Amino acid sequence: MNPVEEFNAYRSEMNDKILAADNKVLKRIFNLDTNTFAEGALDVKTKEMLGLACSMVLRCEDCIKYHLEKVHELGVTKAEVFEIFSIANLIGGTIVIPELRRAVEYWEALDKQKNKA
Amino acid sequence: MNPVEEFNAYRSEMNDKILAADNKVLKRIFNLDTNTFAEGALDVKTKEMLGLACSMVLRCEDCIKYHLEKVHELGVTKAEVFEIFSIANLIGGTIVIPELRRAVEYWEALDKQKNKA
Amino acid sequence: MNPVEEFNAYRSEMNDKILAADNKVLKRIFNLDTNTFAEGALDVKTKEMLGLACSMVLRCEDCIKYHLEKVHELGVTKAEVFEIFSIANLIGGTIVIPELRRAVEYWEALDKQKNKA
Amino acid sequence: MNPVEEFNAYRSEMNDKILAADNKVLKRIFNLDTNTFAEGALDVKTKEMLGLACSMVLRCEDCIKYHLEKVHELGVTKAEVFEIFSIANLIGGTIVIPELRRAVEYWEALDKQKNKA
Amino acid sequence: MNPVEEFNAYRSEMNDKILAADNKVLKRIFNLDTNTFAEGALDVKTKEMLGLACSMVLRCEDCIKYHLEKVHELGVTKAEVFEIFSIANLIGGTIVIPELRRAVEYWEALDKQKNKA
Amino acid sequence: MNPVEEFNAYRSEMNDKILAADNKVLKRIFNLDTNTFAEGALDVKTKEMLGLACSMVLRCEDCIKYHLEKVHELGVTKAEVFEIFSIANLIGGTIVIPELRRAVEYWEALDKQKNKA
Repeated sequence: MNPVEEFNAYRSEMNDKILAADNKVLKRIFNLDTNTFAEGALDVKTKEMLGLACSMVLRCEDCIKYHLEKVHELGVTKAEVFEIFSIANLIGGTIVIPELRRAVEYWEALDKQKNKA
Repeated sequence: MNPVEEFNAYRSEMNDKILAADNKVLKRIFNLDTNTFAEGALDVKTKEMLGLACSMVLRCEDCIKYHLEKVHELGVTKAEVFEIFSIANLIGGTIVIPELRRAVEYWEALDKQKNKA
Repeated sequence: MNPVEEFNAYRSEMNDKILAADNKVLKRIFNLDTNTFAEGALDVKTKEMLGLACSMVLRCEDCIKYHLEKVHELGVTKAEVFEIFSIANLIGGTIVIPELRRAVEYWEALDKQKNKA
Repeated sequence: MNPVEEFNAYRSEMNDKILAADNKVLKRIFNLDTNTFAEGALDVKTKEMLGLACSMVLRCEDCIKYHLEKVHELGVTKAEVFEIFSIANLIGGTIVIPELRRAVEYWEALDKQKNKA
Repeated sequence: MNPVEEFNAYRSEMNDKILAADNKVLKRIFNLDTNTFAEGALDVKTKEMLGLACSMVLRCEDCIKYHLEKVHELGVTKAEVFEIFSIANLIGGTIVIPELRRAVEYWEALDKQKNKA
Repeated sequence: MNPVEEFNAYRSEMNDKILAADNKVLKRIFNLDTNTFAEGALDVKTKEMLGLACSMVLRCEDCIKYHLEKVHELGVTKAEVFEIFSIANLIGGTIVIPELRRAVEYWEALDKQKNKA
């Protein structure tokens, strides 16, 4: 498995276990997550970019990977994604740089996976 | 002075004092702040929305006010700004709600100021 | 108005405005908030104490006030609430102390209000 | 070694090294940690649940594992621990979900270890 | 009362109430706080500068005021304190700027108070 | 490769890729990072200690490693570095302990590398 497949496999396996535990609040939070990023007054691309920037300043590595994959699928360019990174690094400071390194690595993995397909 | 004028007056007065202290690093950070939100691969409106969402999840009240004023000037609608709020509150959790209350209050102040003008 | 009434009046006024904006995600988050703290496998008192401790380590002042009022109503004693404070201050560090000061002040206001009633 | 043994072995080895360095403040913080979670006005089970919830909203993975093991030993049920998770995820937002996934994985490891014993 | 006296009066009044509640953990944390910043392998000035920088990146306003007063008393110059500010703002990002504004305001208050004495 | 070499190799490889992307804001942030820690009103050793303490309370593992290497090179003693750790753990709370464990492990790796050289 490549890094993208590995991340998604673990994510998917654990999400299934969480939902199987049948805690109503957690199920609703997961459900809400889907609704929040659906087309609305703002388009999906803008929303996913907002999700990515927020994840980055909060230094949530798995959240960054998740939104990176979404914006990659939605055709956000490398120049655009680097501008999102620059905003997150300015606002969140140099402690965001380690997440930036891993985001750049994951972006490359997303590029590779797409080229193979 | 209304709340918007009050915030901007304090912000402007203190920024002047900070720049007057002539610390090169701080001056460059302030300068960089301007450049980061300039038109680029992403347009100014998208960038300011990213700045607003990041400020909200990080619960930086003055940063929220600053970006709220920017997006208000740029014509972001109430429905759009509430979608930004919803993303920030989902990602950042209910600890963001107190900032949401103050943001809604400030948005009203921005509306009032605009209507008077 | 005493500090407790003042906090609740502002909170209530702004919550009404937020809900009036009719953003579905925010409405569901508010709704979920009510459900999460309802009786379940854990009793309401335990849940509110968990909410208080989490609010304190995250230094969310309004959230602390909200949960302080709840645990006060539920009969949590001063000795118990100080043990919650001690856990939050140990885990979250001395940056939690300013919130501790305000929490102790608010606890006194809750005591006063109850005694008057 | 299973994941639980691995975590505890590393934790124990490094704690020994920290205490061996003979820094009085760090030794007292470690000592205080033990006292804080001892029986008091609140019972040990409640205190450990508070510790778990705080660790989760602060996204401290090792702290979560430590308190998960404690509440597991104290007989907290799966339904109860998921209610703690739900409170932490509501208050701390969806950035807590990655920690939730790892917590669920670790809870399973604790179950397995107990069944073997 | 000037802003410095006001801050110290509130801080002192609430600390007394916290200590009067006789929670052993909180008392030890307060005691530990004093010991941590005492002369050791590092001198008091360096330690207080470390306390100030940490308080700033964590955006703990009261903690910043406390350490600002200490470094002011210890003869830290304006150029030095601005270099601490610059490090905190680079590492912690532009969300630290609102704290920077208030810190500069408080530094002026400390200057004024000293000149009057 | 030992842990120090491994960390630096990854850091260096990814930094090159980030700079190659030619985003002006990110390049300036990287450049500013170098300037901020240069000799000024405060000496380099003090600045690096400030950087280490800030990185620790913000729980940025890679940032801690980076500044640990710097202070190690600058001749900060084990007793001194443990006092920095103690300040960070007091201010930031016990959630900093996992970072403390990894910092102590990395400090040993730095010692080993130096002795081999």
